[in-house]
Amino acid sequence: MVFSVHPLKYSQCRLVNAWRQPGSSQSAEVLRKSVRAASPLTGPKVCPPALSSLSATRRGLPKEKMTENGMMSRAKVLTIDTINPTVKKVEYAVRGPIVQRAVELERELSQGMKKPFAEVIKANIGDAHAMGQQPITFFRQVLALCSYPELLSDNTFPEDAKSRACRILQSCGGHSMGAYSASQGIDSVREDVARYIERRDGGVPCDPDDIYLTTGASDGIVTMLKLLVCGEGASRTGVMISIPQYPLYSAALAELGAVQINYYLNEEKCWSLDIPELQRALDEARQYCNPRALCIINPGNPTGQVQSRKCIEDVIQFAAKERLFLMADEVYQDNVYADGCQFHSFKKVLFEMGPEYSDTVELASFHSTSKCYMGECGFRGGYMELINMDDEVKAQLTKLVSVRLCPPVPGQALMDLVVNPPQPGEPSYDNFIKERTATLSALAEKAKLTEQVLNTVQGISCNPVQGAMYSFPRITIPEKAVKEATEKGQQPDMFYCMKMLEETGICLVPGSGFGQKDGTYHFRMTILPPSDKLKILLDKVKEFHQKFTQQYS
Amino acid sequence: MVFSVHPLKYSQCRLVNAWRQPGSSQSAEVLRKSVRAASPLTGPKVCPPALSSLSATRRGLPKEKMTENGMMSRAKVLTIDTINPTVKKVEYAVRGPIVQRAVELERELSQGMKKPFAEVIKANIGDAHAMGQQPITFFRQVLALCSYPELLSDNTFPEDAKSRACRILQSCGGHSMGAYSASQGIDSVREDVARYIERRDGGVPCDPDDIYLTTGASDGIVTMLKLLVCGEGASRTGVMISIPQYPLYSAALAELGAVQINYYLNEEKCWSLDIPELQRALDEARQYCNPRALCIINPGNPTGQVQSRKCIEDVIQFAAKERLFLMADEVYQDNVYADGCQFHSFKKVLFEMGPEYSDTVELASFHSTSKCYMGECGFRGGYMELINMDDEVKAQLTKLVSVRLCPPVPGQALMDLVVNPPQPGEPSYDNFIKERTATLSALAEKAKLTEQVLNTVQGISCNPVQGAMYSFPRITIPEKAVKEATEKGQQPDMFYCMKMLEETGICLVPGSGFGQKDGTYHFRMTILPPSDKLKILLDKVKEFHQKFTQQYS
Repeated sequence: MVFSVHPLKYSQCRLVNAWRQPGSSQSAEVLRKSVRAASPLTGPKVCPPALSSLSATRRGLPKEKMTENGMMSRAKVLTIDTINPTVKKVEYAVRGPIVQRAVELERELSQGMKKPFAEVIKANIGDAHAMGQQPITFFRQVLALCSYPELLSDNTFPEDAKSRACRILQSCGGHSMGAYSASQGIDSVREDVARYIERRDGGVPCDPDDIYLTTGASDGIVTMLKLLVCGEGASRTGVMISIPQYPLYSAALAELGAVQINYYLNEEKCWSLDIPELQRALDEARQYCNPRALCIINPGNPTGQVQSRKCIEDVIQFAAKERLFLMADEVYQDNVYADGCQFHSFKKVLFEMGPEYSDTVELASFHSTSKCYMGECGFRGGYMELINMDDEVKAQLTKLVSVRLCPPVPGQALMDLVVNPPQPGEPSYDNFIKERTATLSALAEKAKLTEQVLNTVQGISCNPVQGAMYSFPRITIPEKAVKEATEKGQQPDMFYCMKMLEETGICLVPGSGFGQKDGTYHFRMTILPPSDKLKILLDKVKEFHQKFTQQYS
Repeated sequence: MVFSVHPLKYSQCRLVNAWRQPGSSQSAEVLRKSVRAASPLTGPKVCPPALSSLSATRRGLPKEKMTENGMMSRAKVLTIDTINPTVKKVEYAVRGPIVQRAVELERELSQGMKKPFAEVIKANIGDAHAMGQQPITFFRQVLALCSYPELLSDNTFPEDAKSRACRILQSCGGHSMGAYSASQGIDSVREDVARYIERRDGGVPCDPDDIYLTTGASDGIVTMLKLLVCGEGASRTGVMISIPQYPLYSAALAELGAVQINYYLNEEKCWSLDIPELQRALDEARQYCNPRALCIINPGNPTGQVQSRKCIEDVIQFAAKERLFLMADEVYQDNVYADGCQFHSFKKVLFEMGPEYSDTVELASFHSTSKCYMGECGFRGGYMELINMDDEVKAQLTKLVSVRLCPPVPGQALMDLVVNPPQPGEPSYDNFIKERTATLSALAEKAKLTEQVLNTVQGISCNPVQGAMYSFPRITIPEKAVKEATEKGQQPDMFYCMKMLEETGICLVPGSGFGQKDGTYHFRMTILPPSDKLKILLDKVKEFHQKFTQQYS
């Protein structure tokens, strides 16, 4: 399916402005005046409220100062000094300052401002559709049918799309996606998820009652961490996360006031996860907190490594020995590219290790509609499977999620389609396979291309992108640049990425946003741009790095 | 648009089972066996892991006891004793035990079990579509077009639906709802929200930068509360909420560890909000916490009262005097039924009070796609507007929401349609008005009907349902029943509602789930069932109450 908006559609879009309230902000200004004129307290030199509250801060005046209209403005209830302190601690680099600057630059370009580049390329986030990847036709047909069931009598839609839509609607209250679902998720969707997991894991059983649908994987991960956090001081819950990590983890732990325990992936061995390093991190952490959970991302984000079966088995043994709750972030389970690499789910390995483990080790596994071949981030669909979770805890979890009523139903419907796609013999099967294969093989090529080109650059070394959607190359930053960055109070790789953004329009995320060994520098770059654009992007990165290195040598 | 699934669609649904993996759970059982056979540790008397972990708890054995396969099962990492204690404190009656029992009863009925009723009527939650309310055709057409843009060249769709879809897609990354949006929400949607607010409030200006799109109103409310919580002991943040309240508030405060400050609405004066009571609650609370915010629900949930302009002005003056951050839950702003009642937004009143207030009082107002005439709960769309919020705090908020990436894009699209519906002269305008009017006038009738019938019952007194979607009548429960409930460790109104559910199939929420003056009892009942069903429901309630009263007199 082609998403580019064709001329007819553009003309339709011009229509849109026809019925818009004429110059609402203007007329608002007029009305604002009238409102204020009507008010007894309005002095002559009134400025818009937005302005007056802004300007005080902008000019860095204490908030009790006089406002322009000559009145004492009282101090605000909620200020940076009185905000929830845990919120202040939260950081999320993937949408941090560099991305805000990228958005500014886009605006400046659209305003015709001159820049050394024609467009901003956002390679900062795993947002496949934004990079031009096309949705799976079948998925969108079913979603359209579910949104507007009148289409069920439209003969241009394939029968299998109609039957899927119909099944989904039948399990919705009033046959409408507009009804709340059960807080744990629609029953029939959880059943389909369970069947999918059983197929994926070679028949290892899955109970739909262990499935919770979520608002993207992030929601599930944060909810699980929330359950695990307790204690104070030295008995505070500690959670082990990989470094480099996906910053959702550090952000959630900061917000929950839990202790972040870093274990370092081995960059020299293709970002492998080594048990001795897990042991080191755990033993040290036990001196100042109560480590209760171990988080794994496989395939890795931002590192792109794919863990071997052996590694997963070792991790499970470690978790069992050390009594840690396992959290397996497996949202990239279809994104495996390197020869000899294969995705093994923690669930499957756990059960193949026998009941000593499969009856005891507590595991939460997370999946999402946002990655893999579908890349449907905007629908915020996802699920988690909970293995060996205590029944009373499960009851608490069900209660907790019920407060938010339910995950978005369109996202649940999409999750259902992902775990229950067209089957051989169904009308949409061939096209589905064609579209899925095209996307995944394109990603595999781009993964290889990225690694190859980056490794031709002196001062950049990039591990193979075995899976996921990112390269995380190590970059050499000259001493002079490090010095200049430090003087600016910036991380050297932030300084590097900001400079690249300003000079090339390429938006990457500095390694410091994910964590890295001290003295090493990286950036995360998605492999998602279309091949032709990716080539240009890689050449620009190469060129920039050489220029940057010269400049600071 | 009609949502009932017609025969053709049923036949399609039967199709659905054709391509399903045959008896997956069966084959799973077989495979489970083979997996276990392959495992060296498996003894002869292996039971499924799910079972073994469940049974231990079920049989109430300490978790260290032997499992069926003769191995020591280690204690779990996460148990009810080691779970986050704030999670345990959370309660949410709207989906509490009574609703779980209702779901069980539905299952039992579907299994052909004999009951004194033919169906369970869920009048516990404001879920319009589940109660048969039809979606707005135009909204669903646009959502279908956005889901599957191929339909933009389908001539059966009206031009205005196409132009809306086109505009929404143009503001999505890659023209796809599958792309992440900005974390604050799609720019063009926030602009449309701002224009809507300006129209609604007679031209009071609204800055799109003050608009944050959310995952339903709940998400926005919890996020705002999260920002406000700080301090320990006597300086812990306190938040004032009405009693009766919507339990999202108490649940969120419990989870955040903030202090809940109850102010009581005046049932004798049609659930009015009285300033002296606000003052009493505040003064008492100041002795043990730091009150920082005042939450208002208008129109009221569960009470259905609609606040007068005077009342809102008094509340704003109170908040200004006492330096409280105002949170106005205005999700029922279109649900006003009673003659002489009118919705006044806090924003509008605030600005009409002049800059002394409009430049200083901090206000967050919340809206949603879930209520009003659209009732699209499943899409989890919503927004909040922030007035006079400190810039640095806003930056923290933007950072905080970015961790969850973005609200569901279909929900954002729907929110856009709600604030930007068909305009006079557009092809869909007449039908839109017809559908909206039909829904709202039906609700108005049902509000009146509910009040009238309930007030014919001796021992039930019901305030006028001025707005929102619920009646919250006061019920007299005989001493004998109170005694029996207390012996059962149940709230008397829970005892009452449970009995009603078991005997009539009607699912209501006990007043104790929302809070009520000690010694008074209530239930919340939605007015959403179709008129004919609502009549039956009300008669059954009447009959039950009389029987119940006799039985316990």
